[in-house]
Amino acid sequence: MSNVYKKLELVGSSREGVDDAINRAIEKASETIRNLDWFEVKEIRGWIDDGEVQHTQVTLQVGFRLED
Amino acid sequence: MSNVYKKLELVGSSREGVDDAINRAIEKASETIRNLDWFEVKEIRGWIDDGEVQHTQVTLQVGFRLED
Amino acid sequence: MSNVYKKLELVGSSREGVDDAINRAIEKASETIRNLDWFEVKEIRGWIDDGEVQHTQVTLQVGFRLED
Amino acid sequence: MSNVYKKLELVGSSREGVDDAINRAIEKASETIRNLDWFEVKEIRGWIDDGEVQHTQVTLQVGFRLED
Amino acid sequence: MSNVYKKLELVGSSREGVDDAINRAIEKASETIRNLDWFEVKEIRGWIDDGEVQHTQVTLQVGFRLED
Amino acid sequence: MSNVYKKLELVGSSREGVDDAINRAIEKASETIRNLDWFEVKEIRGWIDDGEVQHTQVTLQVGFRLED
Amino acid sequence: MSNVYKKLELVGSSREGVDDAINRAIEKASETIRNLDWFEVKEIRGWIDDGEVQHTQVTLQVGFRLED
Amino acid sequence: MSNVYKKLELVGSSREGVDDAINRAIEKASETIRNLDWFEVKEIRGWIDDGEVQHTQVTLQVGFRLED
Amino acid sequence: MSNVYKKLELVGSSREGVDDAINRAIEKASETIRNLDWFEVKEIRGWIDDGEVQHTQVTLQVGFRLED
Amino acid sequence: MSNVYKKLELVGSSREGVDDAINRAIEKASETIRNLDWFEVKEIRGWIDDGEVQHTQVTLQVGFRLED
Amino acid sequence: MSNVYKKLELVGSSREGVDDAINRAIEKASETIRNLDWFEVKEIRGWIDDGEVQHTQVTLQVGFRLED
Amino acid sequence: MSNVYKKLELVGSSREGVDDAINRAIEKASETIRNLDWFEVKEIRGWIDDGEVQHTQVTLQVGFRLED
Repeated sequence: MSNVYKKLELVGSSREGVDDAINRAIEKASETIRNLDWFEVKEIRGWIDDGEVQHTQVTLQVGFRLED
Repeated sequence: MSNVYKKLELVGSSREGVDDAINRAIEKASETIRNLDWFEVKEIRGWIDDGEVQHTQVTLQVGFRLED
Repeated sequence: MSNVYKKLELVGSSREGVDDAINRAIEKASETIRNLDWFEVKEIRGWIDDGEVQHTQVTLQVGFRLED
Repeated sequence: MSNVYKKLELVGSSREGVDDAINRAIEKASETIRNLDWFEVKEIRGWIDDGEVQHTQVTLQVGFRLED
Repeated sequence: MSNVYKKLELVGSSREGVDDAINRAIEKASETIRNLDWFEVKEIRGWIDDGEVQHTQVTLQVGFRLED
Repeated sequence: MSNVYKKLELVGSSREGVDDAINRAIEKASETIRNLDWFEVKEIRGWIDDGEVQHTQVTLQVGFRLED
Repeated sequence: MSNVYKKLELVGSSREGVDDAINRAIEKASETIRNLDWFEVKEIRGWIDDGEVQHTQVTLQVGFRLED
Repeated sequence: MSNVYKKLELVGSSREGVDDAINRAIEKASETIRNLDWFEVKEIRGWIDDGEVQHTQVTLQVGFRLED
Repeated sequence: MSNVYKKLELVGSSREGVDDAINRAIEKASETIRNLDWFEVKEIRGWIDDGEVQHTQVTLQVGFRLED
Repeated sequence: MSNVYKKLELVGSSREGVDDAINRAIEKASETIRNLDWFEVKEIRGWIDDGEVQHTQVTLQVGFRLED
Repeated sequence: MSNVYKKLELVGSSREGVDDAINRAIEKASETIRNLDWFEVKEIRGWIDDGEVQHTQVTLQVGFRLED
Repeated sequence: MSNVYKKLELVGSSREGVDDAINRAIEKASETIRNLDWFEVKEIRGWIDDGEVQHTQVTLQVGFRLED
């Protein structure tokens, strides 16, 4: 009912773009955290090499319920 | 010439990602509003289930011209 | 080592969405600037016509190393 | 599933404080809007008279699901 | 006493400048809304043509009291 | 009519919570300032001891009319 | 003297309001963390059901001293 | 040389618009403060009556040099 | 169609006020840049002398289309 | 216990850098204010002459306890 | 390649100033975390005693690569 | 009198800390730009290697007067 949640800040990166970088960060987080519930995008940036985007990086906060 | 515009705040959601969530919100708004002119993304977040992104939610403001 | 970088602010636009608009801005910048190193997304907005997204516009800052 | 939501901005006021001002705004909104789903506090301010708080005002955005 | 207010976001535009753009937005809003009470400027921007300002656009929120 | 107001920034603290911390700050300010007119909450924080909230601190700006 | 502190981001929720949601988050955090020292409120939001506030959610950062 | 400055926050209001509201606040401040050096606009808002702007209010910070 | 724009940050100043400071910055920019398209006000400040506003300074970003 | 604090905004400047500018502002404030308790840096800027930094300016808020 | 990073928020404090407070926080973090990669300063504040700065506190986020 | 200024965004980096990073950016800019007048710090971050700060990076905007 009156749950308490914790939020972590992660940065996912991908050669394919914003959506994939989000997915990779969530996927990685779910390896060690149960009850992942939502995410909030805080920043989108990326690295350029040879005049082309090499990686898109998405910083996000993920929230998960603390168990009783 | 010296038009007045109104802005509404909407949240579109999609299983596919950011671009599709934007499209769905615009599409829904266009059912009832004429003269939709531009949008501005205010927030990107989403819901996670079973360690995977279930919905990406994009909050946007849409602007439309008020008719004389 | 202790390099100095310069940042420019660009707006890329695309009919396809956020990732493509980023790519187009980087591509255009790389025509005249060497050593492009990173980008940061500042704003996502777009234009609507006939109730559909016509262009997604992404404002980004690109950073590049100043040569000695 | 892939719902679209709309957000409205309201200001509730109360002689009793923050929580009551929120409740009053939600109550008023629910008179005319169905499917109210969540709120976000944007600002807390108030009016003073004779050296005492007269009204606490809470600006909030309320989100509700648009029906199909 | 413990009134509830609603805020709308409008964009006024004018060939003359900031104050006139505000006035035009308020004037337009007052055609359909009673009890307009205050406004807050959120953004000032504009369009340029032939090296001169063509329109100044002021985005503002207007607040009005909801009637009982 | 065309009054000029001054704003001060204060921090009120209370063992009871947000509303009481606001009241205490206003009360203290009214000991030395006449014409207090409004307040705006800027920050809510607090101190913890032994795993419990000891004081809630509310930073607020108070506005008062300068006399002619 | 020259301590290092760590900050965690938590979300407390309560049926009673802002102060209680803060207390619940601190209480939960204190079950596993010693030396909790302060908190900062980052966001207040909540869920609505049947036209009434069901839960107030307060996002806060809590700071605690890292032991030597 | 290595001066210290103090900043005050004022709100000027005017029936004529933004520039005049700034001037009135500066004029009032200069009655009691010497060495006023610069101002920064923080907020523009105003009051509406009968569907027309009654007062434009400009919140500004003014900086002045503290004398040795 | 899918144009790329560049944004520059300028500061215009004027003895007359906000609108004139904007005009002067745009006018100056148009001496060397073609295709100026829009501006966004970022900051309004100014210098005071002898208790009166001497210059209003408006910081703005101007956007212009990069030619193919 | 439930103290009330006041915050002032100061700008310290120094030829040596950020830390020294902070110290100078605090030192100046302590000439006239007792019970100075904490400071918060709001802005770092500075003046350049002949291609070199002449002064670093640090804007800070200082908090002090109001006496009973 | 497509790494995932985690960010922690720390507060370093020092009697010497900003740079030293950053170093102390990084040093402390590196006792328990491998792969520390970057930091971002979020806030600079400090404590005053007897009219002098006692500690400068720098809040920073540190990012580190999660191992596969 | 009514000058127009341009602002550029630079990132200086240094092994020694914040003040030195600012100096290096200004020094580099002054190689190609005359009339540099002021700077504003936008961001402080840095790179870590082997558990120690390797470079402090300061993002700043520098303003310079456009010549007639």
